[in-house]
Amino acid sequence: MDIEKVNSMDFGEFVDVFGNVVERCPLVAAAVWSRRPFSNAAELEHHFLAFIDALPQSGQEGILRCHPDLAGRELQRGTLTAESQREQSGAGLTNLGADERLRLAELNAQYRARFGFPFVLAARLSDRAAVPRELARRLRRPPALELRTALDEVKKICRLRLADLLGSNPAKL
Amino acid sequence: MDIEKVNSMDFGEFVDVFGNVVERCPLVAAAVWSRRPFSNAAELEHHFLAFIDALPQSGQEGILRCHPDLAGRELQRGTLTAESQREQSGAGLTNLGADERLRLAELNAQYRARFGFPFVLAARLSDRAAVPRELARRLRRPPALELRTALDEVKKICRLRLADLLGSNPAKL
Repeated sequence: MDIEKVNSMDFGEFVDVFGNVVERCPLVAAAVWSRRPFSNAAELEHHFLAFIDALPQSGQEGILRCHPDLAGRELQRGTLTAESQREQSGAGLTNLGADERLRLAELNAQYRARFGFPFVLAARLSDRAAVPRELARRLRRPPALELRTALDEVKKICRLRLADLLGSNPAKL
Repeated sequence: MDIEKVNSMDFGEFVDVFGNVVERCPLVAAAVWSRRPFSNAAELEHHFLAFIDALPQSGQEGILRCHPDLAGRELQRGTLTAESQREQSGAGLTNLGADERLRLAELNAQYRARFGFPFVLAARLSDRAAVPRELARRLRRPPALELRTALDEVKKICRLRLADLLGSNPAKL
């Protein structure tokens, strides 16, 4: 999809296409539409990331809370968004053994209890062996630092999903 | 539901219950959870409204863009949220004649083209005769004023939906 096509969209079309670039937060795409026209894919991406950065801390935590657990209840129930299903599946998280799933569920619960938001990771840049290791590592970090790290992961997911839609390559991930 | 019950919810439960208090913007409820515990229903309501006020203008426009048209395509297709379906139905908007529906569709399109967001009105405080009249009136207003008015309607809807969930009475609507 080229940028002229993006710039020609009314807000309904734009939110239909880009509404899940930030997981379950169509508000972000709906806000970014205010910034059109976009010169290129990089500028479009910039406005998504800048909107996230401009939110008050509660809003940034809110974005994280709209994400599902990795290999969690929503995956079991089949209620993930299409994007999240694809990403978790690609990382091998749909094929865990019972032990691995239980271990992840325990770590996810500890993480949620400690930080007040779920563990978010760009699953496409990880795999089933790395996820629990990374979760255990991040679980020990100070809350303020961990919020920044989690938002950086939201931004990686956002850039990868945008690149999929635009047929472009995200730089420097 | 009493406020102790609300304060006992983890963020997943809270977003399940309050996620559509602002139409299709679960991010708002997910952010408000950061403010718990709440002393009472009024304080909970305050945090929803304050979050909307604290957004940059693009975010406020984004909230409006997550709303469906009144008596629009989503009503025809049956894809409204349960809350919106109930509100539009209560105002008689599900029983319009073909002429009334066409008239509203034209006004909605003019409004979207002029302001860059859909016409939002607390349908529960209106009815099928008043909606096109109010739409035609607001269509002529200056954009900056109309943004404030539209957000005031979002807040009325938010307060009515909160009152439904909490079994309380919203004051001063």
